[in-house]
Amino acid sequence: MSGTVPTGFSFRVLATDGAARRGEIVTPRGIVRTPAFMPVATQGAIKGVGWRDLETAGADIVLGNTYHLMLRPGAERVAALGGLHRFINWPHPILTDSGGFQVMSLAGLRKLTEQSVKFRSHIDGTPFDLSPERAMEIQALLGSDIAMQLDECIRLPAPEADVKRAMELSLRWAERSKAAFGDAPGRALFGIVQGGDVPALRVESARALAAIGFHGYAIGGLAVGEPQAVMLRMIEETVPHLPAERPHYLMGVGTPLDILEAVARGIDMFDCVLPTRNGRHGQALTRFGAINLANARHADDPSPLDPESRCPAARDYSRAYLHHLIKANEAMGATLLSTVNLFYYQDLMAGIRAAIAERRFETFRAETLAGWARGDIPAR
Amino acid sequence: MSGTVPTGFSFRVLATDGAARRGEIVTPRGIVRTPAFMPVATQGAIKGVGWRDLETAGADIVLGNTYHLMLRPGAERVAALGGLHRFINWPHPILTDSGGFQVMSLAGLRKLTEQSVKFRSHIDGTPFDLSPERAMEIQALLGSDIAMQLDECIRLPAPEADVKRAMELSLRWAERSKAAFGDAPGRALFGIVQGGDVPALRVESARALAAIGFHGYAIGGLAVGEPQAVMLRMIEETVPHLPAERPHYLMGVGTPLDILEAVARGIDMFDCVLPTRNGRHGQALTRFGAINLANARHADDPSPLDPESRCPAARDYSRAYLHHLIKANEAMGATLLSTVNLFYYQDLMAGIRAAIAERRFETFRAETLAGWARGDIPAR
Repeated sequence: MSGTVPTGFSFRVLATDGAARRGEIVTPRGIVRTPAFMPVATQGAIKGVGWRDLETAGADIVLGNTYHLMLRPGAERVAALGGLHRFINWPHPILTDSGGFQVMSLAGLRKLTEQSVKFRSHIDGTPFDLSPERAMEIQALLGSDIAMQLDECIRLPAPEADVKRAMELSLRWAERSKAAFGDAPGRALFGIVQGGDVPALRVESARALAAIGFHGYAIGGLAVGEPQAVMLRMIEETVPHLPAERPHYLMGVGTPLDILEAVARGIDMFDCVLPTRNGRHGQALTRFGAINLANARHADDPSPLDPESRCPAARDYSRAYLHHLIKANEAMGATLLSTVNLFYYQDLMAGIRAAIAERRFETFRAETLAGWARGDIPAR
Repeated sequence: MSGTVPTGFSFRVLATDGAARRGEIVTPRGIVRTPAFMPVATQGAIKGVGWRDLETAGADIVLGNTYHLMLRPGAERVAALGGLHRFINWPHPILTDSGGFQVMSLAGLRKLTEQSVKFRSHIDGTPFDLSPERAMEIQALLGSDIAMQLDECIRLPAPEADVKRAMELSLRWAERSKAAFGDAPGRALFGIVQGGDVPALRVESARALAAIGFHGYAIGGLAVGEPQAVMLRMIEETVPHLPAERPHYLMGVGTPLDILEAVARGIDMFDCVLPTRNGRHGQALTRFGAINLANARHADDPSPLDPESRCPAARDYSRAYLHHLIKANEAMGATLLSTVNLFYYQDLMAGIRAAIAERRFETFRAETLAGWARGDIPAR
């Protein structure tokens, strides 16, 4: 697989600015403009936000969680229904994770062996056995455009010996994942760099994965509670050892600031539940930074979140109304703020892409940080 | 007020078919085609469904709950923010109830006197004092296009003496409501018929309200658990005593069958939380009757709810997906089924209106009942 790309899947770097890259992933289901942010459709839906609004926001691709989908409704069922795209009615590209991360964080009674991870569903206790081969099979049944290798993601902090063991297991599972993935025209498989917070292990993992050869490379096991500086150092250590001609994906990240900093270090793809999770909790993410709509200071404020936003929800409703909906626990409050946040993330990515193309990424980053630092529009 | 209509509010009957009426309420904010179904925006939002979808569904008017809005965010606050239409961003007509019904069903520590009902907020225990005068003041602050008199709605079954006492208090409150409402060009005030399940009391209430004179007349205190036959009998007893040239509104009703039967007896307006409440619980209301999407028989069904529906949610998603969303407790499941139901209700009303205009309401009613009786499309 190394050095060749199956028909229908390709990546090219269109422009660079320092380590930042403006690129394009081509799949049979459409183009993903990079740097890209992938909203998370955990169980086959973006929480509280419909596909039409997601398209309008500008998302090219979404992420589906293999762990959740294998438990319910089940991969074989989704396949019988025509695959994940048809099932959820999203015709554009989909990336699925391998399930490994959520097995570690959600499932009950885990038993990890060289062969696989056995666990019980957190929903009803049903036993499952997830091997690299089964992870590939499930993702093929789902029909995702980009599949991820099965890996072991351990919590940090952890003793270096444990980090090393998990990284090495993940490498062996990478080889097995690639073998099981086989030849799947138009579909891509990404390897996942592990190694915790140990630079030498990260480098070893990246080099070994590059030698195996994947369509893209993810950095996993970060944004799991460690300081941002540690995350950024790990990215800096890792990216130079990843093939430059392949997309680089930082899994589960993150805040707008995380994204800016990671793009500056050569990352092309991101996913995170933050826009919808924080929206449900009353937080709007805007060019003025984070705004907590549950705060009483918004209760009488007739001004919209951002009159210049492209997002109708940020223009058409007063902060007082959004505050009311959040306080009253109305579903529409979560929907409107999640929509605001998904638009903001896509606008941020569009701004990043344009800035890289025009070789003014550092200026864009400084201006964006200044906007957040300046803070929100003063209340009336 | 009797016999005259303030500038900007009017009602006319465009066609009749038996007792069924096709009409039009004109308000400064738009026309309400009757028979009309008013979706309920309890706390200033339709649960799970946005205004754009509600407009597309064909709703001309929504109902806001005075009880909920007076508690939170508060009527004075809404007024300071430009009134309810601007606050919630719904520019079309709004009817507000008086708060009386929900004070009786939700509030704590009620104390009812001739003067008013004192109660404590079910949210935080704040004391409130709701008199007919304050109910008019609150609805004026909200700026609703149609206000309702304050009434006392008692639970059934109840001793006739209690029903009579509550009906008579409601009549005295009707007079006070009308006096307090005063002259409000473009806004309308409706009286509410009470009298429980006692025909003579219903007749007395209707006649007395007609003598006071209102822009419209509601029948309250029904659909509170009594058999449908009782409800229909009360409508039959009451409607002949209501001014024919005014709209007749059956409060809190109901199922599609209730609506068909009530229209046949001269009712022009309805409101109910059923489309959204049942949607949240996994039930779709369609021309094939009620379909419970939580049922396992839908788990593998690739067919949509109704390929001929005008509603995208009924066409674009498989029953298997809707089943999955409901079982997984995804907000989008409630949103999609609520949307399906709101479209179905509006389509039902449009069908009713067209049938009355063409003097084929009985045929329409029979065909609609036959469709429900035939049941759902056979599963594949």
